[in-house]
Amino acid sequence: MATREAALADPAVDAVLIASSTDTHAELIEAAARAGKAIFCEKPIDLDRHRVEACLATVATAGVKLMVGFNRRFDPNFAKLRTALAAGRVGRLEMLAITSRDPSPPPLAYIKVSGGLFRDMMIHDFDMARFLLAEEPVEILASASCLVDAAIGAAGDVDSAVVTLKTASGVLCQISNSRRTSYGYDQRIEAHGSLGTLRAGNVAEGTLEFADADGIVGEKPLHFFLERYAEAYRIELDRLITAVESGAELPTTGDDALRALVLADASLESVRTGRAVKV
Amino acid sequence: MATREAALADPAVDAVLIASSTDTHAELIEAAARAGKAIFCEKPIDLDRHRVEACLATVATAGVKLMVGFNRRFDPNFAKLRTALAAGRVGRLEMLAITSRDPSPPPLAYIKVSGGLFRDMMIHDFDMARFLLAEEPVEILASASCLVDAAIGAAGDVDSAVVTLKTASGVLCQISNSRRTSYGYDQRIEAHGSLGTLRAGNVAEGTLEFADADGIVGEKPLHFFLERYAEAYRIELDRLITAVESGAELPTTGDDALRALVLADASLESVRTGRAVKV
Amino acid sequence: MATREAALADPAVDAVLIASSTDTHAELIEAAARAGKAIFCEKPIDLDRHRVEACLATVATAGVKLMVGFNRRFDPNFAKLRTALAAGRVGRLEMLAITSRDPSPPPLAYIKVSGGLFRDMMIHDFDMARFLLAEEPVEILASASCLVDAAIGAAGDVDSAVVTLKTASGVLCQISNSRRTSYGYDQRIEAHGSLGTLRAGNVAEGTLEFADADGIVGEKPLHFFLERYAEAYRIELDRLITAVESGAELPTTGDDALRALVLADASLESVRTGRAVKV
Amino acid sequence: MATREAALADPAVDAVLIASSTDTHAELIEAAARAGKAIFCEKPIDLDRHRVEACLATVATAGVKLMVGFNRRFDPNFAKLRTALAAGRVGRLEMLAITSRDPSPPPLAYIKVSGGLFRDMMIHDFDMARFLLAEEPVEILASASCLVDAAIGAAGDVDSAVVTLKTASGVLCQISNSRRTSYGYDQRIEAHGSLGTLRAGNVAEGTLEFADADGIVGEKPLHFFLERYAEAYRIELDRLITAVESGAELPTTGDDALRALVLADASLESVRTGRAVKV
Repeated sequence: MATREAALADPAVDAVLIASSTDTHAELIEAAARAGKAIFCEKPIDLDRHRVEACLATVATAGVKLMVGFNRRFDPNFAKLRTALAAGRVGRLEMLAITSRDPSPPPLAYIKVSGGLFRDMMIHDFDMARFLLAEEPVEILASASCLVDAAIGAAGDVDSAVVTLKTASGVLCQISNSRRTSYGYDQRIEAHGSLGTLRAGNVAEGTLEFADADGIVGEKPLHFFLERYAEAYRIELDRLITAVESGAELPTTGDDALRALVLADASLESVRTGRAVKV
Repeated sequence: MATREAALADPAVDAVLIASSTDTHAELIEAAARAGKAIFCEKPIDLDRHRVEACLATVATAGVKLMVGFNRRFDPNFAKLRTALAAGRVGRLEMLAITSRDPSPPPLAYIKVSGGLFRDMMIHDFDMARFLLAEEPVEILASASCLVDAAIGAAGDVDSAVVTLKTASGVLCQISNSRRTSYGYDQRIEAHGSLGTLRAGNVAEGTLEFADADGIVGEKPLHFFLERYAEAYRIELDRLITAVESGAELPTTGDDALRALVLADASLESVRTGRAVKV
Repeated sequence: MATREAALADPAVDAVLIASSTDTHAELIEAAARAGKAIFCEKPIDLDRHRVEACLATVATAGVKLMVGFNRRFDPNFAKLRTALAAGRVGRLEMLAITSRDPSPPPLAYIKVSGGLFRDMMIHDFDMARFLLAEEPVEILASASCLVDAAIGAAGDVDSAVVTLKTASGVLCQISNSRRTSYGYDQRIEAHGSLGTLRAGNVAEGTLEFADADGIVGEKPLHFFLERYAEAYRIELDRLITAVESGAELPTTGDDALRALVLADASLESVRTGRAVKV
Repeated sequence: MATREAALADPAVDAVLIASSTDTHAELIEAAARAGKAIFCEKPIDLDRHRVEACLATVATAGVKLMVGFNRRFDPNFAKLRTALAAGRVGRLEMLAITSRDPSPPPLAYIKVSGGLFRDMMIHDFDMARFLLAEEPVEILASASCLVDAAIGAAGDVDSAVVTLKTASGVLCQISNSRRTSYGYDQRIEAHGSLGTLRAGNVAEGTLEFADADGIVGEKPLHFFLERYAEAYRIELDRLITAVESGAELPTTGDDALRALVLADASLESVRTGRAVKV
């Protein structure tokens, strides 16, 4: 297998995919940028906002493309929801609600280096909010608890959190995160507007339904992100390749990664100070 | 309490409601008809077609109104379905499917005097088919089994039966009956047409849903006819009273009772002969 | 019709129902209390917390029963949800989400004397939160906008608002209110716990479903509170009568009214100050 | 590209996939069988029962494996339903209902050589019935109409048909076929048993739901067999390859093809004679 240097030096390589551990992302992005490669990097670029800004400056100087892995944007249901919003199906969007719960917490060792729930988990929901709202959030209110596992609290993190975002025009967005469900991966969005309301529900494991004296039992949601977002990952890579080959615009950029991180940092500050934080 | 004679002789009595056992219906209808009263009678008028015809002749001679208790026509969901069909929402109706299952069989003593599943239970579905089809069935194919309780078979009846009706223009209607479910009263209709398909689902006991590792459990259907058709019974009586007071046309007549019985008799003949029976 | 004085002086009157305009509630309660009558009063007792406290002191001195009209507690679906929570079906409750949207705003004249969205509309959701959480909220974060009708904003009120409540043990509750939907009355609750999640969905106008090339269309929710809570109002009165006749405990009290008002006032303060407010 | 003779002579070829037009199937199967290859053939083997029997005799003599393409057996929802039936989840199976409707009729040219609705379309449902019932049907009652397109009738075929199958123990199975829907491919199964009822619903294009004054609109079913059974086709080939490589038993055989054809022929006879046909 080629070494990293050999790969970056190889003129046959058009693009680099970075899916290593978070602490290596920024440095790998910079190396690839200097080598003139198009770059795909899994989120986050870095847990530190200043490090992200420095990395993005390097990318800008190199003039290369950088796509960040916000996989959920490519989920067919969420993508359809956004297309419908953009087409005005709900009229003016007024309220957004994002529910996002994992089936179970990651290992404690991962929690400790993850940057915490807001930077590691809710960052996806911040990106989704930005993807669906037609404008940037300007204010954030956060509240959080450790309810699932006391060890997570002992490690300085939370496992249950809710956030309210508000945009300049007053659109309100509620996000709800938990590190644990009893029924699988819970990924739902509701967009309430002046002319109608759109909901993207969970994707079930199947359509089987069983009826008896205990009720009507339907199948539960797909278990976790690998199952739920399998198709999204495929589409994400297709979009990367198309953009690199055709020169088309990338669907996500380093700026998206930075802005989601800013919202995560603001959430932490809101939890700490008990105040609405302006962003 | 007034005796029957006193009640029928009382000029303050405009209408008579007959909800006694089946073997008394025809005679009570005739007495009330001769007394010049408007009549509501629970189905069936009689289990014997010739007795029904004689009774209806008496009613016709007396010139009184007779409404027969096909309660399901007044169920708000089924009534809405029919209104939508009449308004052309599905275009031309092509196929109809009626599912009708009781939570549990009646007592064997009742089974023995009931006239059998086709005359006692499926008669409601024959009436519903006639209510929804824009034309009369002309051919019937039936198949039946005793699967729920062997004692029902020993009593000469069946507990599971399916029927296909066909109209002159070729519309096909499937009916499915069982004397037993594990989940309550199953009362569903699907009307498939050239421009769309309408379905009236079961009415659940509530909207509560519980999610855990076993799936997503919704509430089961209302238990039996008293729960499911409570509103229908209320509307049915309102319609009777309105018709008697205003002189408006009755929503059901003795002829409806006769035609449903003819379909029940034809089903029995089809089961016995293994042939399509013309009606 | 008896005058108020005659009614209160009549020993045959056991209980008084107050359903007049809000500004008359406290004074009527006090008069009835002094007359020794059991009292049912529609919420709110008064828009001013101190006036409510004074009124409740009079009721306490008189030693009469006071039930406050939080109708939603008697909705069969929400009542079942609470019973299931109390029975431990979801294990430990961790997160609660209450969605509550009206089909359309009330007249502006009503808005102006209503006390505002938090005291007039969300007060029902505060009561529902208290009804379902096993402990009192201790902290509240609110955010609000005027998105539906600028005239509501001009009148000093909001029409869209979201709130996060937190209990002493860290349970998080999100509430979402809007004065307008395109599809009727939206009244849903989700209770997420360690062992499972319960959801009480909307009650639809019926079960009819229509399928064609545009999708599968189901019926929308019951239009507004009179339709949705018809059964709840009936049960509410039954509970009042039973309590008065049997001496049983009332399902709601003046204290419930006061506590919900305190949460409404705290929401207003949170919106004004941009801070989490302790209660 | 290799000629057919070269391919069949090539010792590196283990198995042959036949997906050509129906009139070539039997002859190609026989050639492959004589060459000692394992064979996968799309249904039907032939439209004539005697030709199928002759072909299967050749396969038997050659001692090769023959799998027939009843793709729906490999649909994950239907496969799960069968597993649940076999595990006794519904107790004793009593009634089966199979709804199978195409979005639109095939070209008339295809209709004319298709063998007709029963042999071309309902044959899949006959196989599904055999797959799910624990015993063979012994009696069949069929009724059919031309409602969708008069040209189909002019070509001697029908486009709407319903069938009732009965097994030796009395289990009743209803099948409903139409060549046209307004909403896509309709593929549903309901299995009603003594202890519960299982339903496999349609697979929708997505989870998006839109609510406004017209109702709650969900997404329609996947359009046709290529979309709905994409995963089934993949699994079907996996099962073939596994069976050829490991020597494991094939999931479908030539006998399944023959038995489904016998049921199709019996349906035609029932329509023609108006009688229940024993099989």
